[in-house]
Amino acid sequence: MTRSPEATRFVLVAGTTETARREGISAAGADPDLLSTTPAADAELLTYGRPVRTGTVPVSPSGCPTPALVTRAVRELLGFELTVVDGGLAEPTAAPTVSVGAGVGRDIGEQDPVPTAYGAFEAARQFGHKLPTDELWLAETVPGGTTTALGVLRALGEDGMVSSSLPENPVERKERAVSEGLSASSMSAGDAAGEPKRAVRRMGDPVLATLAGLTAGAVETDTAVTLAGGTQGLAVAALVRHGGYEGRLGLATTSYVADDDSADLRAGAAALDLDLTVTDPGFDASDHVGMERFVAGEAKEGVGMGGALAMADRAGVGMDAVRERVGAVYDDLLGDRTSDGTAPDSGAGSR
Amino acid sequence: MTRSPEATRFVLVAGTTETARREGISAAGADPDLLSTTPAADAELLTYGRPVRTGTVPVSPSGCPTPALVTRAVRELLGFELTVVDGGLAEPTAAPTVSVGAGVGRDIGEQDPVPTAYGAFEAARQFGHKLPTDELWLAETVPGGTTTALGVLRALGEDGMVSSSLPENPVERKERAVSEGLSASSMSAGDAAGEPKRAVRRMGDPVLATLAGLTAGAVETDTAVTLAGGTQGLAVAALVRHGGYEGRLGLATTSYVADDDSADLRAGAAALDLDLTVTDPGFDASDHVGMERFVAGEAKEGVGMGGALAMADRAGVGMDAVRERVGAVYDDLLGDRTSDGTAPDSGAGSR
Repeated sequence: MTRSPEATRFVLVAGTTETARREGISAAGADPDLLSTTPAADAELLTYGRPVRTGTVPVSPSGCPTPALVTRAVRELLGFELTVVDGGLAEPTAAPTVSVGAGVGRDIGEQDPVPTAYGAFEAARQFGHKLPTDELWLAETVPGGTTTALGVLRALGEDGMVSSSLPENPVERKERAVSEGLSASSMSAGDAAGEPKRAVRRMGDPVLATLAGLTAGAVETDTAVTLAGGTQGLAVAALVRHGGYEGRLGLATTSYVADDDSADLRAGAAALDLDLTVTDPGFDASDHVGMERFVAGEAKEGVGMGGALAMADRAGVGMDAVRERVGAVYDDLLGDRTSDGTAPDSGAGSR
Repeated sequence: MTRSPEATRFVLVAGTTETARREGISAAGADPDLLSTTPAADAELLTYGRPVRTGTVPVSPSGCPTPALVTRAVRELLGFELTVVDGGLAEPTAAPTVSVGAGVGRDIGEQDPVPTAYGAFEAARQFGHKLPTDELWLAETVPGGTTTALGVLRALGEDGMVSSSLPENPVERKERAVSEGLSASSMSAGDAAGEPKRAVRRMGDPVLATLAGLTAGAVETDTAVTLAGGTQGLAVAALVRHGGYEGRLGLATTSYVADDDSADLRAGAAALDLDLTVTDPGFDASDHVGMERFVAGEAKEGVGMGGALAMADRAGVGMDAVRERVGAVYDDLLGDRTSDGTAPDSGAGSR
């Protein structure tokens, strides 16, 4: 047990919730059908640098590329170890994945949207417990995931609003979905306080269940865990805190989430006693088409973007180098798109 | 499509054939039950540097460690990209895997031992076709795999004998198993010439089917392919040649396989027009307990050991450095074993 060749590992949990099919909930895909492809494609982009089985680079209707491009760019600069966990994928991916038994998440308006939550939590906990690494960064890709994060926070009795991949946070739609979910589960806000597995099964998604299990298992062996995500990371932290863990826990996200006035990231992080790291990629200093939709407030976070930026910053890689690589990754994959976000017929885009 | 950050990729196909349960066929595990654990454990060792979900470092009854330790040691020195493909695993692994629909392989004495062969071949072919890499090294871990390799060679009508993980090649047991298999499939030697998918379905294993598909798909896009294996690599090459591919194909193995007088590696490689690379790790120059069973003729190859040695050699990493790292990996994982191959109660070994 002397050497530790893989001191730092980045784990992406990729999965789905049918909650994403609700209108106006998510920007993570050009149309509702593509929402189920997005996590499989993100996993391929992070692993191989391009889509393989999915054939798709996820792009929002207005042309914002998936934040997977940013995390991939940082991975090319730093070369960190990557593991993808299947947190309930709906489509096959060519990325190698670890199975924890998570199935597709159903709409939180249903009575039991995540029947695989308990099993996935436990299998992920054991995996997190045994994974030989000193430091773990945990990220997600699950369209619709901020709504299920809100569901989990409410079930646990935590205050605050989650962020959004859309420039205008559809707060009322989310509150309505959560309210329907609580009714369908015959629950009131706070009814699952101290019962994280119940909260995520009734009101969450399989990715949150898997991330909470991974975190719980990793901290048992004193692995340093940083949740690489915005308000979804906050929901994972809330699940772990409600499970009784009181030790150190990090949250790393982007300035886009931290500056989102419609959400309460800083207050939430403080309430859960998290070590918060906020990183600004400085995309406003670029005039590259691949970054302009982020500057406009879209996407904001996802696929561990904020965590990847924090890793780059810690490694002494400047944001100018990150931006340059993001531009190169974008040009390589989507360079034939026009600046208004449309793709020509030959494009690799997802429209 | 300008950059190619992952110009070289090492793919391990991990799976099973129940042929390994026949007595005296394989050294790849301390007892027959462990044979089904070995591929899952090898995948974890190569990915993480230690067993995770399996909890086992495969060791032969006489104390020879899995060649995965050698490939892992080279990976720590070179840092090459790794993908594990599930070629019919019988036990869950914590290593992330790509699925191609391969199921557990049954004994080749049965009439239809690899019913998933056609599907796995085609899915692997598509994966190999789309994988963005300039150069692919393809390796296997499948206890009992030299016997199914012989089955495939005979079904295709190819001459020659395969090598063995045992110091004394159980040639007669293998010939008997193949003879039973041909009878059960109502076939004679050579009946499946020019029909690789039929050959591997009736007389092979799911790992061979997957590797043949990967190779076929990769060469379609002019990816340089090196089969990292001994006489099992030869069987894969035979499948691909019988599928009509006449271009360049490499085979990289160890001096242990090349020097095995019971097999015909060099003649087989010449007959199939393969670019053969043989690498001697020089383990006889070491007095480390972790290498002495290899010197005694055990294991010989597996988990891409010969390919990994060739990659190290090409990168200018000397075999002295490889041996030093192999010793360190062994000490880390199995250092509390005594020199006669037995493990104390606290050992991580598989006995």
